[in-house]
Amino acid sequence: MKRNNDLGAFFEARNVAVIGSFKEYWVGGYGVIKNLLNFGFSGNIYPVNPSCSNVLGMTAYPAVDQVPDAIDLAIVITPSPIVPTIIEQCGHKGIKAAIVVSDGFAEANGEGIKLQREIVDIARNSGTRLIGPNTIGIINSASGLVTTPYFTGYSSIQRGTITYVSQTGLAGAQALPLEDLAYPISKMCDFGNKCDVNELDIIDYLDGDPDTKVIAAHLEDIKDSHQFMNMARKVVANKPVLILKPGKSEASIRAMASHTGSLAGNDQIYDSAFKQAGIIRLDTWQEFLEIPRVFASQPLPTGNRIAIISLTGGAGIMAIDAAVTYGLAVSQLSSHTINKLTKISPRLATNPIDFGQVAAVITNFIPTFEPIVTTVLGDDNIDCITIILSAGLADEMTDAIDMFRRLKQQALKPITIWLCGPQLAVREELARELETIGLPTYSNLETAVKALGIAANYARIKSQFEY
Amino acid sequence: MKRNNDLGAFFEARNVAVIGSFKEYWVGGYGVIKNLLNFGFSGNIYPVNPSCSNVLGMTAYPAVDQVPDAIDLAIVITPSPIVPTIIEQCGHKGIKAAIVVSDGFAEANGEGIKLQREIVDIARNSGTRLIGPNTIGIINSASGLVTTPYFTGYSSIQRGTITYVSQTGLAGAQALPLEDLAYPISKMCDFGNKCDVNELDIIDYLDGDPDTKVIAAHLEDIKDSHQFMNMARKVVANKPVLILKPGKSEASIRAMASHTGSLAGNDQIYDSAFKQAGIIRLDTWQEFLEIPRVFASQPLPTGNRIAIISLTGGAGIMAIDAAVTYGLAVSQLSSHTINKLTKISPRLATNPIDFGQVAAVITNFIPTFEPIVTTVLGDDNIDCITIILSAGLADEMTDAIDMFRRLKQQALKPITIWLCGPQLAVREELARELETIGLPTYSNLETAVKALGIAANYARIKSQFEY
Repeated sequence: MKRNNDLGAFFEARNVAVIGSFKEYWVGGYGVIKNLLNFGFSGNIYPVNPSCSNVLGMTAYPAVDQVPDAIDLAIVITPSPIVPTIIEQCGHKGIKAAIVVSDGFAEANGEGIKLQREIVDIARNSGTRLIGPNTIGIINSASGLVTTPYFTGYSSIQRGTITYVSQTGLAGAQALPLEDLAYPISKMCDFGNKCDVNELDIIDYLDGDPDTKVIAAHLEDIKDSHQFMNMARKVVANKPVLILKPGKSEASIRAMASHTGSLAGNDQIYDSAFKQAGIIRLDTWQEFLEIPRVFASQPLPTGNRIAIISLTGGAGIMAIDAAVTYGLAVSQLSSHTINKLTKISPRLATNPIDFGQVAAVITNFIPTFEPIVTTVLGDDNIDCITIILSAGLADEMTDAIDMFRRLKQQALKPITIWLCGPQLAVREELARELETIGLPTYSNLETAVKALGIAANYARIKSQFEY
Repeated sequence: MKRNNDLGAFFEARNVAVIGSFKEYWVGGYGVIKNLLNFGFSGNIYPVNPSCSNVLGMTAYPAVDQVPDAIDLAIVITPSPIVPTIIEQCGHKGIKAAIVVSDGFAEANGEGIKLQREIVDIARNSGTRLIGPNTIGIINSASGLVTTPYFTGYSSIQRGTITYVSQTGLAGAQALPLEDLAYPISKMCDFGNKCDVNELDIIDYLDGDPDTKVIAAHLEDIKDSHQFMNMARKVVANKPVLILKPGKSEASIRAMASHTGSLAGNDQIYDSAFKQAGIIRLDTWQEFLEIPRVFASQPLPTGNRIAIISLTGGAGIMAIDAAVTYGLAVSQLSSHTINKLTKISPRLATNPIDFGQVAAVITNFIPTFEPIVTTVLGDDNIDCITIILSAGLADEMTDAIDMFRRLKQQALKPITIWLCGPQLAVREELARELETIGLPTYSNLETAVKALGIAANYARIKSQFEY
């Protein structure tokens, strides 16, 4: 039994064979190839199908071992009964990595469980690593490697440093508006049934991946908790590990057992093991998607003292509650800051800083708002900032974006943003522009604050783990 | 001292005087009039300004007591030092209701506190009720009465049965994309500094308002807790009262004291008083906005047993955790349902019902999905349903919407929806269409489930309070 532990064959693949049906339809091999082309995959694509010689202008080969070039990665999307034969052919061809998109394995029935064991045995014998089955596969934004067979309707993913791994296709290009949100993505991976490659392999790989600054993992179960926590402890000294772990109820634990074919353990044990390993646990799917961004684009805070700069007093109050809930202190501003802000307006001199009254007149927005933020960024009493803003105020979008670009260039402290505003499209456009600049906005006011609380918490954990 | 308790003069106003500056600019009286015109206010508008004779084609009057017709409501947006004189003139004119949009009162400084007392005294003497100061005022979707002075960029608000009241302008047409979201709104009211009209007045008024089916209130403080809880208890027997009450930390309590000039009490006391009064407490601003919709468009569930119909197993699992957290039971399907679903596919026979595998082929989506939902709606073991769907699946949007319209017509049980999908605009369009049909979608998977948990909880409370 050979076992290579480098998942580079998956994520850095150059020559990719797509083995499946190429009917002109989205779900299937055709969909995979369309997406690879669509996202501008920089490697080579080799369609494989015995009853087809040409797909979208590319030569198709009857079997993978008849492809003339070496293959790094096979993407398999055939009916499940054929998959063992395909994996065998991949072995003959010397392919080190295969993603089995097909379903009909352990998640389906007893027959599928047997089939899954069979492909694992074959792959282990030939030294092929498997992701899946029952997966939409992986993404590498650097090379345009997007393996989902489903329609996405967009063609670009912002390159960045977040790697998402999950046990659900929900974290995939067909379910997430990655282009619209412009989240800075390094890689994504759906484990599917996790017959071979699992959370232990990937966290090991990502630890050494220079393109990954933060790891967000949705895990229904953890195969070897002890080993995983030890590994995570090591990773956490380098980069944050954020985990969304369902299974807080007996009902969900039972359902996961049938869904993934694996048994999840007691939730409280996980909770304390995560804490000991320095893993940060997230609570909701939205947090899983949104919170990692604070680590991708913001510096770590050196303490937990937050300033809240808000266009309304009411939102500022709610932000205080969130700050206290998530371990932040709403600090007094320094006397230097108070002096400077008082010169702009006496009503700015407390934290939260309510700029609504002074910036309500739109033409004054940028010249008033910018020095407020600059002053607070320079305050030694403040470690991080949440800004609460209306996208409607940014009437002159270009000027507002230029201002935020200037602010980001000088910011040595993390900033998160919550936008309200009367038009969804305007709010989303501003959010996307801010994301591109490197300023993350959050769907929820409370999450914008919580992201900073988690960043401060991680900074503390990291300093402890580095010893 | 005269005091009229009917807030109808505000919300049902026909003749509205707008007293302020009419420079062609959004913030000010000009903005108020623009919004009234914009939202098609069905009453009459009377601009009032001593140095202007014509606004947007309408005659302007030098003072409110020189307007020839009777005035129901004055909207005052002048510099604060003039406001006492204006309120006095309103009294002379016999106006029963005035919204003081102007700031510079108790929220600003000592001088403002005095000024606020002054206008309250004047108004009490003349029997004029005041909303504000420091408010964006009110909305009545039925008449197009939208008093905010700020730019909104849209011109229609979906008529419905939710009334939102708040102590922040965040719940206003200039901060919320009401048109884009199509939330079913009856009324909105920002109390501002609450110098006169407060939560007690409004809950009393809304209890008797046939256009309000659910009351959502954001309250930083409650002036007379005892009276409020007694009043709420009475209202709760008729319609749900949902409250977002900041002040969970000492820091926020201190900040509210300076922000609203009023002292908030101990949070735990509020918590238990709310429970006793049958008030449901919400946790976040997003919940405040989104959760009331389950009461506006859905029947009350007769129990707490939820079915989860999901396009992925992973999302179904997360929904289970949310269900259990928020008091719902993930019930076994009846044998009748299991038989019917098994005929569609043996893999549909458990709750959560994972339809991803059977509906992955888009052309089969509607004919497969519709009987699944219909069958579950008819299951005696199920009281409510959360549907988890991709907006990308609804490729043929018109057909999908027709299907949802049919489902809504037959649904005697509440349904909530969470949409994922690869394009924000498509997801938002489908959400808007579903909202219009009467099926609420939620930004968060967990909130879609929580809304049903809260509906089931309210159904229980209501049955107890009716005795």
